[in-house]
Amino acid sequence: MKGTKGIMKKGIFITLEGPDGSGKSTQIQLLSEYLTKKGYDIVLTREPGGTAISEEIRKVILNPELKEMTDMTELLLYASARAQLVGEVIKPALEQGKAVISDRFIDSSAVYQGIGRGLGIETVYEVNSYALQGLMPDITFLLDLDAEEGIKRKKKQAELDRMEQQDVEFHQKVAEGYREIAKRNPERIIRMDGTLPREVICDMIREKVEEQLNK
Amino acid sequence: MKGTKGIMKKGIFITLEGPDGSGKSTQIQLLSEYLTKKGYDIVLTREPGGTAISEEIRKVILNPELKEMTDMTELLLYASARAQLVGEVIKPALEQGKAVISDRFIDSSAVYQGIGRGLGIETVYEVNSYALQGLMPDITFLLDLDAEEGIKRKKKQAELDRMEQQDVEFHQKVAEGYREIAKRNPERIIRMDGTLPREVICDMIREKVEEQLNK
Repeated sequence: MKGTKGIMKKGIFITLEGPDGSGKSTQIQLLSEYLTKKGYDIVLTREPGGTAISEEIRKVILNPELKEMTDMTELLLYASARAQLVGEVIKPALEQGKAVISDRFIDSSAVYQGIGRGLGIETVYEVNSYALQGLMPDITFLLDLDAEEGIKRKKKQAELDRMEQQDVEFHQKVAEGYREIAKRNPERIIRMDGTLPREVICDMIREKVEEQLNK
Repeated sequence: MKGTKGIMKKGIFITLEGPDGSGKSTQIQLLSEYLTKKGYDIVLTREPGGTAISEEIRKVILNPELKEMTDMTELLLYASARAQLVGEVIKPALEQGKAVISDRFIDSSAVYQGIGRGLGIETVYEVNSYALQGLMPDITFLLDLDAEEGIKRKKKQAELDRMEQQDVEFHQKVAEGYREIAKRNPERIIRMDGTLPREVICDMIREKVEEQLNK
């Protein structure tokens, strides 16, 4: 893209989605390195969390002792953490032309609370419209993985938090829910087989990001 | 009301509203004693808080160090604490015929976030409709007090939390906001002069509660 160097880049907002253990962290790391080499300032965030306030909310959401939490409380807590992340970090960064990469975002709520908890995708998007105030990711990568495979990978790691402790049926609903919302948003959500070698996934992500940057 | 004794009482949901320092706690105590003598099981709650989960959310909302909190985050956090309180405590208690008395509820959000923060009363009620799922107080007592008087009373007490630290202008908006929503909801919200002697206010509250119970 000779000739465009030095021109102020426009911000890009990329999110990675997929069940626990699907390899999002690895791909975010690789994508971050790639975009840094291309001259982007990178802002990495994760949900729930990403700001001091959202991290405090995250502690409440994921606290394994708080078993009485109603589904609606959970949905509203995710939305409040997201409102803070959008207002304090994501919107300002995009306005400065940065590349924002988020580990989970709105689609996680649509799947986990909307489908997994049964609150309905529409309710999730309505509640979150207050948190997002018009912002949506430019592009979203879904690392698709069967529930059993994700749990197997995750169990090798550490202690499970309140969300990870849900039963297999819940995680199965999550995996199917992701496929459903990918179908509904083909222009934004790129679904990929999460069992492919990480280098292959990495190359596919780079290619799609390039397309997005050249739009 | 001879002849009604022994009949299963229907639950009643009473909320007290008003600026900090308006005397809500005292009146709740007095009303609670009165209803107990009448044979009611009493459930006292406060907002934000009232359940283990809501108390955790309360800590985040009122933490004086979290100065970066956006107005929308604040609104959603109050709504999430309220969703938990409604689902875990208030609805079950009312179904069992108990008297629920809450120190603050939905009207506090309408006033503090809707008017004080400028998010708009309509937005507050929309967001909260997800938290309340159809529940509203049967009767609400507003202890009306000018902003300066409330702050003066409160400062005699302890350290101020994040909400109490707001400037006089904010508290002035709150006092006016309360009057506004009382005007809009004359069938539910009973406005009282918070500078009257506590015995006088107590008698007025009892009278209105009796009316409500005999409806």
